Amino acid sequence: MHRIDGRKPDQLRPVRITRQYNKHAEGSVLVEVGDTRVICTASVEDKPPLFLRGAGKGWVTAEYGMLPRATGTRTAREAVRGKIGGRTHEIQRLIGRALRSVMDLPALGERTITLDCDVIQADGGTRTASITGAFVALVDAVNNLRAQGLIKTMPVKDFIAATSVGRCAGQVILDLCYEEDSAAEVDMNIVMTGGGRFVEVQGTGEEASFSRQEINEMIDLAQQGIEWLINYQKEVLGAAAKGIGEV
Amino acid sequence: MHRIDGRKPDQLRPVRITRQYNKHAEGSVLVEVGDTRVICTASVEDKPPLFLRGAGKGWVTAEYGMLPRATGTRTAREAVRGKIGGRTHEIQRLIGRALRSVMDLPALGERTITLDCDVIQADGGTRTASITGAFVALVDAVNNLRAQGLIKTMPVKDFIAATSVGRCAGQVILDLCYEEDSAAEVDMNIVMTGGGRFVEVQGTGEEASFSRQEINEMIDLAQQGIEWLINYQKEVLGAAAKGIGEV
Amino acid sequence: MHRIDGRKPDQLRPVRITRQYNKHAEGSVLVEVGDTRVICTASVEDKPPLFLRGAGKGWVTAEYGMLPRATGTRTAREAVRGKIGGRTHEIQRLIGRALRSVMDLPALGERTITLDCDVIQADGGTRTASITGAFVALVDAVNNLRAQGLIKTMPVKDFIAATSVGRCAGQVILDLCYEEDSAAEVDMNIVMTGGGRFVEVQGTGEEASFSRQEINEMIDLAQQGIEWLINYQKEVLGAAAKGIGEV
Amino acid sequence: MHRIDGRKPDQLRPVRITRQYNKHAEGSVLVEVGDTRVICTASVEDKPPLFLRGAGKGWVTAEYGMLPRATGTRTAREAVRGKIGGRTHEIQRLIGRALRSVMDLPALGERTITLDCDVIQADGGTRTASITGAFVALVDAVNNLRAQGLIKTMPVKDFIAATSVGRCAGQVILDLCYEEDSAAEVDMNIVMTGGGRFVEVQGTGEEASFSRQEINEMIDLAQQGIEWLINYQKEVLGAAAKGIGEV
Amino acid sequence: MHRIDGRKPDQLRPVRITRQYNKHAEGSVLVEVGDTRVICTASVEDKPPLFLRGAGKGWVTAEYGMLPRATGTRTAREAVRGKIGGRTHEIQRLIGRALRSVMDLPALGERTITLDCDVIQADGGTRTASITGAFVALVDAVNNLRAQGLIKTMPVKDFIAATSVGRCAGQVILDLCYEEDSAAEVDMNIVMTGGGRFVEVQGTGEEASFSRQEINEMIDLAQQGIEWLINYQKEVLGAAAKGIGEV
Amino acid sequence: MHRIDGRKPDQLRPVRITRQYNKHAEGSVLVEVGDTRVICTASVEDKPPLFLRGAGKGWVTAEYGMLPRATGTRTAREAVRGKIGGRTHEIQRLIGRALRSVMDLPALGERTITLDCDVIQADGGTRTASITGAFVALVDAVNNLRAQGLIKTMPVKDFIAATSVGRCAGQVILDLCYEEDSAAEVDMNIVMTGGGRFVEVQGTGEEASFSRQEINEMIDLAQQGIEWLINYQKEVLGAAAKGIGEV
Repeated sequence: MHRIDGRKPDQLRPVRITRQYNKHAEGSVLVEVGDTRVICTASVEDKPPLFLRGAGKGWVTAEYGMLPRATGTRTAREAVRGKIGGRTHEIQRLIGRALRSVMDLPALGERTITLDCDVIQADGGTRTASITGAFVALVDAVNNLRAQGLIKTMPVKDFIAATSVGRCAGQVILDLCYEEDSAAEVDMNIVMTGGGRFVEVQGTGEEASFSRQEINEMIDLAQQGIEWLINYQKEVLGAAAKGIGEV
Repeated sequence: MHRIDGRKPDQLRPVRITRQYNKHAEGSVLVEVGDTRVICTASVEDKPPLFLRGAGKGWVTAEYGMLPRATGTRTAREAVRGKIGGRTHEIQRLIGRALRSVMDLPALGERTITLDCDVIQADGGTRTASITGAFVALVDAVNNLRAQGLIKTMPVKDFIAATSVGRCAGQVILDLCYEEDSAAEVDMNIVMTGGGRFVEVQGTGEEASFSRQEINEMIDLAQQGIEWLINYQKEVLGAAAKGIGEV
Repeated sequence: MHRIDGRKPDQLRPVRITRQYNKHAEGSVLVEVGDTRVICTASVEDKPPLFLRGAGKGWVTAEYGMLPRATGTRTAREAVRGKIGGRTHEIQRLIGRALRSVMDLPALGERTITLDCDVIQADGGTRTASITGAFVALVDAVNNLRAQGLIKTMPVKDFIAATSVGRCAGQVILDLCYEEDSAAEVDMNIVMTGGGRFVEVQGTGEEASFSRQEINEMIDLAQQGIEWLINYQKEVLGAAAKGIGEV
Repeated sequence: MHRIDGRKPDQLRPVRITRQYNKHAEGSVLVEVGDTRVICTASVEDKPPLFLRGAGKGWVTAEYGMLPRATGTRTAREAVRGKIGGRTHEIQRLIGRALRSVMDLPALGERTITLDCDVIQADGGTRTASITGAFVALVDAVNNLRAQGLIKTMPVKDFIAATSVGRCAGQVILDLCYEEDSAAEVDMNIVMTGGGRFVEVQGTGEEASFSRQEINEMIDLAQQGIEWLINYQKEVLGAAAKGIGEV
Repeated sequence: MHRIDGRKPDQLRPVRITRQYNKHAEGSVLVEVGDTRVICTASVEDKPPLFLRGAGKGWVTAEYGMLPRATGTRTAREAVRGKIGGRTHEIQRLIGRALRSVMDLPALGERTITLDCDVIQADGGTRTASITGAFVALVDAVNNLRAQGLIKTMPVKDFIAATSVGRCAGQVILDLCYEEDSAAEVDMNIVMTGGGRFVEVQGTGEEASFSRQEINEMIDLAQQGIEWLINYQKEVLGAAAKGIGEV
Repeated sequence: MHRIDGRKPDQLRPVRITRQYNKHAEGSVLVEVGDTRVICTASVEDKPPLFLRGAGKGWVTAEYGMLPRATGTRTAREAVRGKIGGRTHEIQRLIGRALRSVMDLPALGERTITLDCDVIQADGGTRTASITGAFVALVDAVNNLRAQGLIKTMPVKDFIAATSVGRCAGQVILDLCYEEDSAAEVDMNIVMTGGGRFVEVQGTGEEASFSRQEINEMIDLAQQGIEWLINYQKEVLGAAAKGIGEV
């Protein structure tokens, strides 16, 4: 099989994470996965959400958006339509759960960190790129709190990253670009930690189905990809990664 | 391990599907899985949705709702809050995709079938119960069209049903009730066809993760449960199931 | 005149109220009037609404909804349209006022009881069936509070029930089903107490009018019907009705 | 009994209707009933509403609003709250039904007339004043169409006006001002035609009830008041009333 | 050049301000500028807005609305569309800023005064008429507070009024009516104080532009017009204007 | 006077416009004015807006947004609040009018070009930076249409750019950064064409006013700044600017 951009079935697109992308936010990155580009900012608020008042722990949450022309044809703004669509809801809940799974929320203290993931150019895999990038912004925001002496221990317990896999014309492939994603019979998003444990496995057939054997192949491929992404996160963070997973 | 209602780890709750539950709808069932009760109605409209006008095929979609006191404490109506929440969106998209995966949409013709799944009492597993029940309502609606001579062949290609599995206190269990679901570290919803092929595998750890080994155990358990559910659907439908999967 | 279902002009449809219909709610019934079926649940909250904080009394309010396929053709969800329609508002205000008229609100204490009336199948008279059924759910919720020793005296001062009357092809008839209601020139909803006093008299001509004489005939007929309904409520409640109206 | 403004129980407040109040509208009046002041404009559109396309007849509808400081304390704008409240819905549906009851809609032709009733100062009875005033604006708009030769016959079949009655401290009184309305145990709005036929009888007890005898007394009183109002409408319209009720 | 209503280029339309137009509001006027008619009410609330709690000063804000048939063809209500449009937002922010510019907010104390400007008939210049009229209503409301001894000194520091100027068929003219405004290439709204200082200068070319020279001519003309308007405000207020600008 | 970033009163911040910033849009730039960064994309649609159907000309419109953390403290998304705020409305209307003032809309043909201006980092002057940048994106989109032979002549009639001026601590300064803007007594936004003609002059005092003399000084300063910006646009566009203003 020939992939549209010449990649091998098990090959990721070029990935780049640029830290300190925004001067206001406590943590901020531009994450690029092929032509997909997402700005992830981490904003720290000194109180937990309402449902955790007095619970002695913090919260990490995410919001996701797309600029109207991030896509091939212009999409109406959700602010104009007056509501957040179902797809947006699904994605931001996914990002939030993924990041919380590696956080020691009591160690964070009574704070909320909001990760805004805004897609400025979309070419497939925006939700998984958001998770991979937002994790780096989150670590920067947490180090910011540590530098101010507001928290003592590193509340990030492990690395986390995500990628997509899918079946396209019968072939299982890694990290689908938009054209592959549109043509895919099966699409699976996987979120995995540095320790090789899974946090999300979301496989979906749209007007199609998949076998037990294909589940295994797809997870194998994703595992490889995420291991590579986590190594890249470590490299990008350098000394800032100190203490992650040492609890 | 002792389950709260005395079940074995691999045991489903009692399931009952009552057909012809509503005198107006083209197909309608009350599905009960333990104390979870959902009314599923299938409404046929004689035109496809806008995005399929002229495409020579039909569409199957779903909406999901909960009565305010379906839950232990009263939940505000989405109509009062003025918008559909993220969880509702996720669930209704899931139900729609699941049902479409077994439909021959060109054979349905330029029609829309809307499956309304309204939870009148919730005790865990409302989305999977909705899929299992809505399938039966869909078959009744389709037979209704056939009886009127509006479609020639059975457009339902296979059976489909769903259940949840999860890890609770380290043990993998089938068909979680509300209390188990609240305590579960990992929750997985699986949708599978009569032919044993998967349509959705959605495993999620909330502030937790799971191993590759546990993925396998959970899928094994779900597979067993869904096989049982599909046999029950066949029994409930009786002659009405004729032609499903014979294409 | 011949009624569509063979009833005499002054005959109610078969009525059935099933108590304890929902395991979560403090009070809950399924009320059936002919083919009209409404689930009424009473939810108790331990504080009054904002406008009564500190006033030393409670409140009873109602919300009304319809499942999309409660009707002959599917109706879009109010949650999807993003707002409560005018008809829904009118009905839920009516139900709330009717129930409050027989409540001793100071005796209820600083609590709110919300009656959710959700129509699962509609065939005319859903608002009057809701009042008749919600009253029973309210009594169950109140007894629940008494059983817990939270209130001392029975705060329900009298029975209350409702029915519709109308003029159809010149004839005054009781308890209109959907087809009669659609054809009626005049429609009147009456709410009356066990003591024979009126709480609402709402007569409306849509592109028609009515004489003083017809007002009298319609009220006579409604009075008979409501007396029957209140006797049935007493029977259904049995010992649970103890103390109502004894103040 | 002594009424707050010195009126007798069966006495209306001073009523004034000023025609041609707005230079843009096809019909427009300022109606004043005591200190209640409502601007009613009739706007003619050259097509019927969607649900009547091709039905060969027209429609009359109403909208109702209140300026924020029409009331003793400022009320937030419905435009700011983003939705029309339940009370507004009830009132505008009532006004529309009342006016349609005296219209020959086929004679109006495929047109929509919208009556906007905007309260600029409220002192009780705004809905009944709106009906009484909007009728005059409607007649002016209809004559406007006749003057242009767009309709041949007078489509207004009869006069229509409305007033309120109620029970206050045990006494039945006519045309309640705001203070009386707030203190009333029972409130009834009556809409009646020039021919003495009823279109709406809406009696409501808020935390109170009323006897059959009181229904009769209230209707008697309203009948007198409305007869007076219709005579006043005739006087105000003068020659413009020609043809009403002559069909 | 010939103006549609025969005015000279530098001539205002007839202006009339009627005080005490509404019996409920602390200050209220009907302002008429030609056929433009706006009701302005001032409502005093005994607390500042949230963002000023504890700041030891008050706030003045404005809301703007139009009755549906204030315009030549009926405009849908913003309450029905469920949101405030962009034009309304712009105008009410402008009115609020203009009035605050002449207020000594600490001298007002921890209060909010809301100026509701509701256009009952529009013929161009509704926003500038609103400012000119709302100022008078504001002075009345403030005197009301002084009369009750709630504030000691006059918190109104200067007069303020507004008018529009524009270029129409190449000619610079004052106080455009609706037809002139529709045809104007350039439209400028100016807000100026009694002391001849500017608070807003908003010049806009719609598909057109203007020279530096024209800016000067337009401001000259507006200055004259506003001086006349402020003299008229003084006359209308009479003794009520005492203390303005004496700080 | 000492400006916070050491600039002279009449000095612009460093400006940079990067073309082809987005691979999907017909025209796209990143415009940076000091620390203010805005992505401007131009999207071409092959039909005019509804109100211009059949009018034989096109339309240019703009939308404006801010990422939540473009600002010093996080701002809630308008999509989450469910509506576009007043400030956003004002700004996007301003941008649209400015760009239309230099367009030959009939020469554009029956098309709509939407300029999305999304602020990814804000430090004052986001609306004027949006105009300056969006103009370049618009020229690129128009050249794109010309390259496809869809339009014959250059429909852009002149250059257009914008900047802010203001009075800060009594001193008139050019191009205010956020801190200056917050402290300014007077703020003026000016939009001017390559031919030195004005399209918008919006001067506002918030709780302050300004003299006729200051209006002149502010316009002088803005004129200089905009001349510089337009020269920079010419340089950035190079050959792509060919034909602008040659009509």
